[in-house]
Amino acid sequence: MQISKRATTIQESPIRKLAPLMVLARQRGLAIHHLNIGQPDIPTPSPYLDAVAEYRRPGAVLSYGPSDGLPELRQAIADYFGRYGVPLGAGDVLVTTGGSEAAFFALNLVADHGDEIIIPEPFYTNYNGFASMAGVRVVPVTTRAEEGFHLPPAEAFERIISRRTKAILVCSPNNPTGTILTTTELGMLRELALRHGLFLIADEVYKEFTYEGAVHHSFLEMEDLAEQVIVIDSVSKRFSACGARVGCLISRNRAVMECALKFAQARLCPPTIEQVGAVAAYRMDPAYFDPIRGEYQARRDALYSGLTTHSGVVLRKPDGAFYMIVKLPVADSDDFARWLLSDWSLEGETVMVAPGSGFYATPELGHDEIRVAYVLEVEKLVRASRILLEGMERYLSAGAAGQAGAAKR
Amino acid sequence: MQISKRATTIQESPIRKLAPLMVLARQRGLAIHHLNIGQPDIPTPSPYLDAVAEYRRPGAVLSYGPSDGLPELRQAIADYFGRYGVPLGAGDVLVTTGGSEAAFFALNLVADHGDEIIIPEPFYTNYNGFASMAGVRVVPVTTRAEEGFHLPPAEAFERIISRRTKAILVCSPNNPTGTILTTTELGMLRELALRHGLFLIADEVYKEFTYEGAVHHSFLEMEDLAEQVIVIDSVSKRFSACGARVGCLISRNRAVMECALKFAQARLCPPTIEQVGAVAAYRMDPAYFDPIRGEYQARRDALYSGLTTHSGVVLRKPDGAFYMIVKLPVADSDDFARWLLSDWSLEGETVMVAPGSGFYATPELGHDEIRVAYVLEVEKLVRASRILLEGMERYLSAGAAGQAGAAKR
Repeated sequence: MQISKRATTIQESPIRKLAPLMVLARQRGLAIHHLNIGQPDIPTPSPYLDAVAEYRRPGAVLSYGPSDGLPELRQAIADYFGRYGVPLGAGDVLVTTGGSEAAFFALNLVADHGDEIIIPEPFYTNYNGFASMAGVRVVPVTTRAEEGFHLPPAEAFERIISRRTKAILVCSPNNPTGTILTTTELGMLRELALRHGLFLIADEVYKEFTYEGAVHHSFLEMEDLAEQVIVIDSVSKRFSACGARVGCLISRNRAVMECALKFAQARLCPPTIEQVGAVAAYRMDPAYFDPIRGEYQARRDALYSGLTTHSGVVLRKPDGAFYMIVKLPVADSDDFARWLLSDWSLEGETVMVAPGSGFYATPELGHDEIRVAYVLEVEKLVRASRILLEGMERYLSAGAAGQAGAAKR
Repeated sequence: MQISKRATTIQESPIRKLAPLMVLARQRGLAIHHLNIGQPDIPTPSPYLDAVAEYRRPGAVLSYGPSDGLPELRQAIADYFGRYGVPLGAGDVLVTTGGSEAAFFALNLVADHGDEIIIPEPFYTNYNGFASMAGVRVVPVTTRAEEGFHLPPAEAFERIISRRTKAILVCSPNNPTGTILTTTELGMLRELALRHGLFLIADEVYKEFTYEGAVHHSFLEMEDLAEQVIVIDSVSKRFSACGARVGCLISRNRAVMECALKFAQARLCPPTIEQVGAVAAYRMDPAYFDPIRGEYQARRDALYSGLTTHSGVVLRKPDGAFYMIVKLPVADSDDFARWLLSDWSLEGETVMVAPGSGFYATPELGHDEIRVAYVLEVEKLVRASRILLEGMERYLSAGAAGQAGAAKR
């Protein structure tokens, strides 16, 4: 017997594939600054953890919840959107097992096997995994570091829209670029969706993380797109609760929500106790986010200042989320990322970064880029920037490694 | 834009589709005995709930866990299988978001779009949902009430095995029939798997629920099938923790586990706090199950005795799980199940059952059957049997309803 093609060909996580080298580096006694994953270090809010701790009642049965989520959570999420000027009812919200499941459901809702989804690249690498499982083809439209990773003009989309194109998927504020779509870009996507009858799938999980007054606009604000918009959301980054696996899928299209419910029924329900925690988190005062936003902004500034001290680095200061794609004067960032773990240290420390290639669908792109996340304290980011840049100087002057890596590819 | 075919055609849950009629019945003031769902009423064990309550630490970050699950849970599950005479390592276990995700991963691991999986029918209805999403065709082999839902001879399988057949999926102890596969049946499946190079996917989530000394044998006990066996497991029924969404996929095939890890990485990790509870539950003394097994056995006997007072009912006493498929002298059990909620009551009470047709892939089967679950106390089951049978007498003597239902079909 043979394992399926989809299982053998699904992409390995570019964020996690360096883990074995990390283990070896730790065994050699190195301290590692993790710029490679978006795991916030901000404590999970007390109301979440308190609600979980209070769940226990003697004789309680942890029974199946509703397939579309606890009613109080669906209402709390709707209320939360209301505070952002997006009126929603609980019926527009279906709770999922993390934003991951919402993204997977969204792909399955709009596309059959062999259909296509357009995604601006670089993009969140796990969309590839969901597309592989769903048998959906990802068709990329490329954005560039030099343009701050903003979208190309409508013609670039028009050229690749086919009979099999079912949706455009965007993430704003963006992982991995930190770019926030402008109202002009939103308008262009709206026109494309209306003209070609496409769904717009919007991943808005970084909504709160906007800096220096930058404004995030949700596709849910566009009333004439109500039937075409599907939003993916999650508590993971918002409430530093990545391990909860609580997210949601939002749409005002009734037929979409009815079909989503059938997918949800097949897997029975999302995790119950984690939903109880999420209800408490969603009911918090939005002022909760103010100091956190300030902290991330300071981190962004520290990492940006640290990295732009090198003239060979191409980087625009991003407006949101907590990632940056950084273009480096290296030929093979996969090789460089491995070298940082296996051959480099400064005073007993090194850095771990995510190679850029995993964030692109176009095979030749991203090899001179890395993604860094700023989920560490400011002092650590200052230090990590220095270790990264000094390492890069050594790597480039050694020459051989970079060349070898390039030759291998 | 159009919703995908897989989303519009995926089967609605036959267990949940009667919910609107149930709501109306409640509004009319009726008490409803729920024979329709396998939601145990046994309390979730204290160690589970205690561990969850103790999770809270000040400043804690509920961070991403490992994609294959918490190492202590994987080890606890391996140890638990060891106590049943199945030696496993933590590396043979990948924690999933419920048995549902394990089943979905298993289908995706063995089959590509358009491939086939053989499943004895009647079967757990959600396999249909997972197959729809995965684009895999379910090919049924029929088992019959008159034969206690045991498997037909190997020839019945040989006739339907094709070039596209990738696996046989069995559930033992079985939902919805309660039947436990005999060692002869296991041997036959083993031969078929070896001869045709097929995977054997075994759903063993009801393992503990065996009565009057009936013995459950796991496919993991067959050493020469190590490369071909994938087991689906879950804490839902075992520890009355359906809402936890913690399950696992088990295989000794290294390539299968490596591919499963890539699927798991795409969705990041299973819910963390629920896993912490599950570790504590798996570490309990197996003696925990003794009184529970006794209780379920008493319930099975009560429901069996109650239903077999009617000579028109075909039913063999099942050996395991907590379900029975019951053949009734009605032409359309969908209509009968609706009628019980909308037109029948005895002293202010009625019963809710799951119509049999949803458990079959063959369209003409199951229309004279219902599935009942015995997850209520003995006295309630005695009463529910009486209400069901008196209702059936009335339904049959009224005649029209049954005939109308049959004609509509």
